Amino acid sequence: MLKSEIEYQDMLSELGRRIRPNAIRKLTSLLGNKEVISLAAGAPSDETFPIEELAEIASRVIRTRGPVALQYGPTKGQPALVDAVVEILRARGLKSASPAEVIMTSGSQQGLDLISRVIIDPGEVALVELPSYIGGIIALHNAQAEMIGVRQDDGGIVIGDLLEKLDRASREGRRVKCIYTIPNFQNPSGVTLATQRRHQLIEIADQHDLLIIEDDAYFDLYFDPEGARFVPLAALRPERVVYLGTFSKVLAPGIRTAYLRAPEAIARKIELAKEGADLSSSVLDQTIVAEAIRSGLISRRLPELRDFYEVRCRAMLEALERHAPAGSRWTKPLGGFFILLELAGDVDAAEVLPRAIASGVAYVPGQPFFVDDTGANTIRLAYSKESPEAIAEGVKRMCLAIAQ
Amino acid sequence: MLKSEIEYQDMLSELGRRIRPNAIRKLTSLLGNKEVISLAAGAPSDETFPIEELAEIASRVIRTRGPVALQYGPTKGQPALVDAVVEILRARGLKSASPAEVIMTSGSQQGLDLISRVIIDPGEVALVELPSYIGGIIALHNAQAEMIGVRQDDGGIVIGDLLEKLDRASREGRRVKCIYTIPNFQNPSGVTLATQRRHQLIEIADQHDLLIIEDDAYFDLYFDPEGARFVPLAALRPERVVYLGTFSKVLAPGIRTAYLRAPEAIARKIELAKEGADLSSSVLDQTIVAEAIRSGLISRRLPELRDFYEVRCRAMLEALERHAPAGSRWTKPLGGFFILLELAGDVDAAEVLPRAIASGVAYVPGQPFFVDDTGANTIRLAYSKESPEAIAEGVKRMCLAIAQ
Repeated sequence: MLKSEIEYQDMLSELGRRIRPNAIRKLTSLLGNKEVISLAAGAPSDETFPIEELAEIASRVIRTRGPVALQYGPTKGQPALVDAVVEILRARGLKSASPAEVIMTSGSQQGLDLISRVIIDPGEVALVELPSYIGGIIALHNAQAEMIGVRQDDGGIVIGDLLEKLDRASREGRRVKCIYTIPNFQNPSGVTLATQRRHQLIEIADQHDLLIIEDDAYFDLYFDPEGARFVPLAALRPERVVYLGTFSKVLAPGIRTAYLRAPEAIARKIELAKEGADLSSSVLDQTIVAEAIRSGLISRRLPELRDFYEVRCRAMLEALERHAPAGSRWTKPLGGFFILLELAGDVDAAEVLPRAIASGVAYVPGQPFFVDDTGANTIRLAYSKESPEAIAEGVKRMCLAIAQ
Repeated sequence: MLKSEIEYQDMLSELGRRIRPNAIRKLTSLLGNKEVISLAAGAPSDETFPIEELAEIASRVIRTRGPVALQYGPTKGQPALVDAVVEILRARGLKSASPAEVIMTSGSQQGLDLISRVIIDPGEVALVELPSYIGGIIALHNAQAEMIGVRQDDGGIVIGDLLEKLDRASREGRRVKCIYTIPNFQNPSGVTLATQRRHQLIEIADQHDLLIIEDDAYFDLYFDPEGARFVPLAALRPERVVYLGTFSKVLAPGIRTAYLRAPEAIARKIELAKEGADLSSSVLDQTIVAEAIRSGLISRRLPELRDFYEVRCRAMLEALERHAPAGSRWTKPLGGFFILLELAGDVDAAEVLPRAIASGVAYVPGQPFFVDDTGANTIRLAYSKESPEAIAEGVKRMCLAIAQ
């Protein structure tokens, strides 16, 4: 039943976009008064951080490679890390991946910001999933994209709705530039894009000359013991896809190291944009991550990470089974951190939140994730940070608060 | 006579903006063939990195504060570091500095990018010094500012020229939004803005409603044993100035940690922009820097850092005294990393460069630092990376190459 400052801040920040300052002040005073189980913040559990190993790696790389690890570095990233990322991409099916296509970024958020700045002209349309990750929405918004939402069901993007939205945009004379998708265990819905739809999405992108921004932050965190992972869109059609991966979920997000792989011409533009944005990402962080890959630390830990999150996902699903209000529906993730709960009727999840917090549980109302302002009756539940017992208790408290 | 990959890359990157690809390929092959003394890259010497201390701090903060140092952190920065920066600002004369005004950034480059994105509307004018730091020029350019150059002499910005440029812009109906200045030991000129001109600049900014972007990266690296530092513009008129400081020059740039202090209303906008840009800077790097400040590591080392660079500056000045071509002039820095050499006649420093490299010395031609495309006969010389002996030899080789 941890409540760290940061997850609270994260939650308020997400809420703050749409909720009135008064409500936030009210939440603040409520949160100040008691320990709250957080199903809100979408951060990895700090229990998963390999603290001892990272302490050893950090001191070792500084001692043995200090003159490089502490100096300015190339904008596109430390060469050894870029090479390691190329290997990771090839293992994910991007057989043609090359160092010229890869840029290291400060978290995938920077990748989303840079690609948005580079490809969007003000007023151009970006398609985003309903719901979608708020950080992606902000990056596109900051680049002055117009966003149109595309519906999802349990198999991800609904192809019929995608075609309809494209058709409507075309009739209205609007230029659709890209589609932003999180194909695996999506934030915030937990949904995974079905294999057949991946192929359909590629075909549609070809026909309509769309760039696909594929944010694959949760790729490694699947629960299926057979490794039922799905092939990245970037592996199916590399020339149409900008692919984003990160070490935040499988190592530690405070070491802000992620990567972006784009067709070479786009990668060159992103490198120039990044040079103006920060010269380079932290060279020390990159050196630590490169060593964590080389030493096998990251790959060795993946099976236990998958177990860690699967146990928590199952605890949440079981608690929902037991306590969820009649008529509500929720997603069944194949991996990742999130479940989307959809309440029956016209319940407003944001209105329930203060009561939920008063009874000792926090969550993120779903509406801010929907660019069309629907989703008021949805809730993003994260099972990534609390213990299975706390998750069960938190879901129970939440469902009681909703029922009131 | 070091030649690291990164300084070479840095140099090419700076050159690449204006020099034809052919020339670059030629340089590349020349550089591939021999050891070259680099007076080009403006990075701190890796000899100054406190490797053992940083290795110890890194492993200690990960072990003792891992759950926070490795987790996502607040966008504006780690609270302990923000508080430490407030103390630094107060010691520099910004008596009213408060945490609400401070944002931690990934190097000052990110600060320059964010402030440019937040305050510039496309087509608005930003005044920049002639010459000015290329990273600042790029950030303003990426925000679609129109740049107008203001002349400098040995006392920094020439106030008469500033007034003339403002007057002309006003007559042309152009909105001048800000002036970007590096008041102490400027990159690339080494020049320091005179005290009286600081007061004049503030008055002019008041009269013309200009925001001042004060990039004070070299503040701590003065040579005068009396500590003849100049009061920051931000201390004179906090409400008109966005002040940028960094730990890159006094600790290590690979730990990409810098800060920005802005009037609160602007700081809030920058925080929102930064949230979209990368969520936060590296939390691990920030935690290391906070501990380096708290433990006294940074302040303790400043006297020896000043000596380190002063010895090198003196070696360069003496070598110029001895070898510089007749009629050339150069600046006499009071601190920092750079001397600007101005050659007599219509010598083109970029044209001389391949010959200089062939004879074993590299520098950066000055023209790319001048937004009005003047300065072809100038050279930026960095004394920050080579030994005093190498600097003397490098200046000699360069002067011979120029004379040829």
